[in-house]
Amino acid sequence: MRQSIELTQVMEWDGGAIRTADDCLAAEEPLEIRVSGKPVTVTMRTPGHDQELAAGLLLTEGLIENRGQISAIRQSEVLYGPGGNLVEIDLTAGSQIPEPSQRNLFAASGCGLCGKASIQDIRHRGLHRLSSRLAVAPEVLCQLPGRLRERQRIFGRTGGLHAAALFTPTGELLEVREDIGRHNAVDKIVGWALLSGLIPLSNYVMMVSGRGGFEIAQKALAAGVPILASVSAPSSLAVKLAREFDLTLIGFLRGQRFVVYSGQSRCIPAAA
Amino acid sequence: MRQSIELTQVMEWDGGAIRTADDCLAAEEPLEIRVSGKPVTVTMRTPGHDQELAAGLLLTEGLIENRGQISAIRQSEVLYGPGGNLVEIDLTAGSQIPEPSQRNLFAASGCGLCGKASIQDIRHRGLHRLSSRLAVAPEVLCQLPGRLRERQRIFGRTGGLHAAALFTPTGELLEVREDIGRHNAVDKIVGWALLSGLIPLSNYVMMVSGRGGFEIAQKALAAGVPILASVSAPSSLAVKLAREFDLTLIGFLRGQRFVVYSGQSRCIPAAA
Repeated sequence: MRQSIELTQVMEWDGGAIRTADDCLAAEEPLEIRVSGKPVTVTMRTPGHDQELAAGLLLTEGLIENRGQISAIRQSEVLYGPGGNLVEIDLTAGSQIPEPSQRNLFAASGCGLCGKASIQDIRHRGLHRLSSRLAVAPEVLCQLPGRLRERQRIFGRTGGLHAAALFTPTGELLEVREDIGRHNAVDKIVGWALLSGLIPLSNYVMMVSGRGGFEIAQKALAAGVPILASVSAPSSLAVKLAREFDLTLIGFLRGQRFVVYSGQSRCIPAAA
Repeated sequence: MRQSIELTQVMEWDGGAIRTADDCLAAEEPLEIRVSGKPVTVTMRTPGHDQELAAGLLLTEGLIENRGQISAIRQSEVLYGPGGNLVEIDLTAGSQIPEPSQRNLFAASGCGLCGKASIQDIRHRGLHRLSSRLAVAPEVLCQLPGRLRERQRIFGRTGGLHAAALFTPTGELLEVREDIGRHNAVDKIVGWALLSGLIPLSNYVMMVSGRGGFEIAQKALAAGVPILASVSAPSSLAVKLAREFDLTLIGFLRGQRFVVYSGQSRCIPAAA
């Protein structure tokens, strides 16, 4: 298991007083992901749950649709020193990913994009309009940030990690993953669900610690999540995508208040 | 000029009370950047200052070193409707970017990375150890977050935008750029400086609203910024990079307190 925290010595200035102190840093290292022997992407991530990250990224970027397409996941175990920054995934015959994506996910999703009606051109092909009838009480939603914080042990020590968590409709925290990158935290929790046989996540609420941008909303949709909540603001493109695919998108979930941008009927009874 | 804010109707739940309201969203759209006719990257960004974003990205990713290498920057002006999501940059003869980068910045920076001592392999070639003797008083540093907030008009309305700003050593705010992506905000402010003839930024302090990860630190170094401050935590790799290149890296700049991770002598007189 790699370290997700590194200790270092720092200098603190506090109203004129100067002191030297030990500080915890969120670890950040590059991870290369290869699929069937070919490099697909490199992402800067917090080490830990790397195989989940790789598996989740393939699903949330629309390169695979289910666990059955994965025949093997490999990563060298490294107890000390450099290494371990490579995850290799083998797909079953007939599940090879399309050629452009073997070079780069982002370039593939952006090709021929300019001048068109943006959203049609950048979202990937595997998205389906949600039909989940999941409903969550507003009072339950308001409890989620507190329960997430309780479980964010690392965040409490470094202040530098994002979290993504899955909750049941009654507010029980199923699992949480953390990473210095918001996208990686989502890919890790989705990868955990994929490898646990829980995809599509039709009966779960996903909560993220950062804001809900387009790519986070697309990843949630790819995993079949019907309700996505964050403590911060979504972007314009995330709202458009959510409305088109009937994803319930909640922002500013703080204290006893939240804002619903799409799919109100799943979380506000009067809107049903 | 494209809109960086979009209005939409939302539903708000507040302690049991439900109301419909108008809400401002930070606009997010893809931008394709082509160099000498070839696609280099697509980034999700908040429209506005797109030409600065493209120019800044070429500099901070080490693809160019100075303004003289750019012979033209073009973007279609769009007053209403789709389009405008393409910036084309022509380089002077002899300034063509290396072949791998023409496919993708990220893939280029990640090639052959795995299993090596990470940091040597992912940083780009154009970085130089800083020799700037810039010094800033701690009391001045503590004023920067407040001055940045004053200027972040958009942030106040949407809660979804990151900012990057340049300050003089006496705390005067030179310029600020905002974007839904932290990296884009840095590329925009660096691009503004590049096109204004201010590179290298040896006599300025850069402040970012988010955390200071590896890529933000690398972008600051590429622009020659000697002091990088943020309100949040840096990552382990950002600290390593900062120490190697003598970048002054400041985190948790809040109220009358901050933490210095590298290059203390530029901001704490007793450490000189």
